Amino acid sequence: MTAARFIVIEGLEGAGKTTAISTVRQWLENHGHPVVQTREPGGTPLAEQIRTLVKSVQTEQVAPETELLLMYAARVQLLSQVIRPALLRGDWVLADRHDLSSRAYQGGGRMIDATLIDSIRQAVLGQTKPDFTLYLDIDPVIGLERARVRGELDRIEQEQLAFFQRTRARYLEIAHSEPNIAIIDASRTVAEVQQQIVVALEAAGL
Amino acid sequence: MTAARFIVIEGLEGAGKTTAISTVRQWLENHGHPVVQTREPGGTPLAEQIRTLVKSVQTEQVAPETELLLMYAARVQLLSQVIRPALLRGDWVLADRHDLSSRAYQGGGRMIDATLIDSIRQAVLGQTKPDFTLYLDIDPVIGLERARVRGELDRIEQEQLAFFQRTRARYLEIAHSEPNIAIIDASRTVAEVQQQIVVALEAAGL
Repeated sequence: MTAARFIVIEGLEGAGKTTAISTVRQWLENHGHPVVQTREPGGTPLAEQIRTLVKSVQTEQVAPETELLLMYAARVQLLSQVIRPALLRGDWVLADRHDLSSRAYQGGGRMIDATLIDSIRQAVLGQTKPDFTLYLDIDPVIGLERARVRGELDRIEQEQLAFFQRTRARYLEIAHSEPNIAIIDASRTVAEVQQQIVVALEAAGL
Repeated sequence: MTAARFIVIEGLEGAGKTTAISTVRQWLENHGHPVVQTREPGGTPLAEQIRTLVKSVQTEQVAPETELLLMYAARVQLLSQVIRPALLRGDWVLADRHDLSSRAYQGGGRMIDATLIDSIRQAVLGQTKPDFTLYLDIDPVIGLERARVRGELDRIEQEQLAFFQRTRARYLEIAHSEPNIAIIDASRTVAEVQQQIVVALEAAGL
């Protein structure tokens, strides 16, 4: 039996994260791995309340650092209550977003200094890091159109195109420079995306 | 006209912060200073929602770092929306709790490493620091009894006595080692406490 792993799905709105998660989950179950699925921000009762807070439209301007700290508050709670206990039990964790989202959205999109984000990450995240990340890359013009078709957009999804272009650029920059992140071309058909995902999982030797 | 100042009232539950704030406010108004009053966590619509979240009893254990990050999320929002604009306008800020509360409660009470707290403080607080802090020192046995008489206790106020003893010890440690913090003996009568406060304000040359 292999040790439990922590796998993360990342990408812009409309990149197809939900379908990708189904694909990975199926693959993990076919390999006999017990799976705990999470989403961020959220995944515990308190973290879901933080999610509601950070996503709802506010009557005041939300400081970028406020948003960042709320994201990390929810993340730390999920890590302590769900992710770490699952990995310790030997369950595999399949996460809909994790730390990379904050680096891309709050770092790239909101232009918060990466050093500031890194000092918070180093202070509160501890040793639990993803073993493998699938980044679903999509042009935000296409992704936002898909997301719009799905329904009303939340506070962050209401940002302008330039915000998502900066977010995508940061995603790509990190994916190209750090290990254990596979870039999936999410502009292709569902079947092609699924195939890329399975190839990436096999190549990662999970 | 003197430049606007940022004055903070700190102390355990039941130390008499509300009365102290009235005393300081009266003193500032007597000196012709326009006053903006704040409370933490809270003080903006979003920060008040964070306050509700952090103070309500949860069905799950709240990780100390989650509580810490929620406190700083609310603080950063208040700084950006209220405190910095007020000081820039020339208004004096009178704050019911600020950064020192997190250092004492989350650092002392919850025993979060001070280096961790310092790295978050340095990352997100910027240059706006209190000019003068009045720390109302009280034995938590007395303070908690006063607070209990007032009504139901929130999640943090439900902590055991040892938590508040550690919090008080950290308050005193910081008050003794850093400048611009006056220690007020809050076990005395209201009149005596008020007198100590006015003496401290005069001595601070505000």
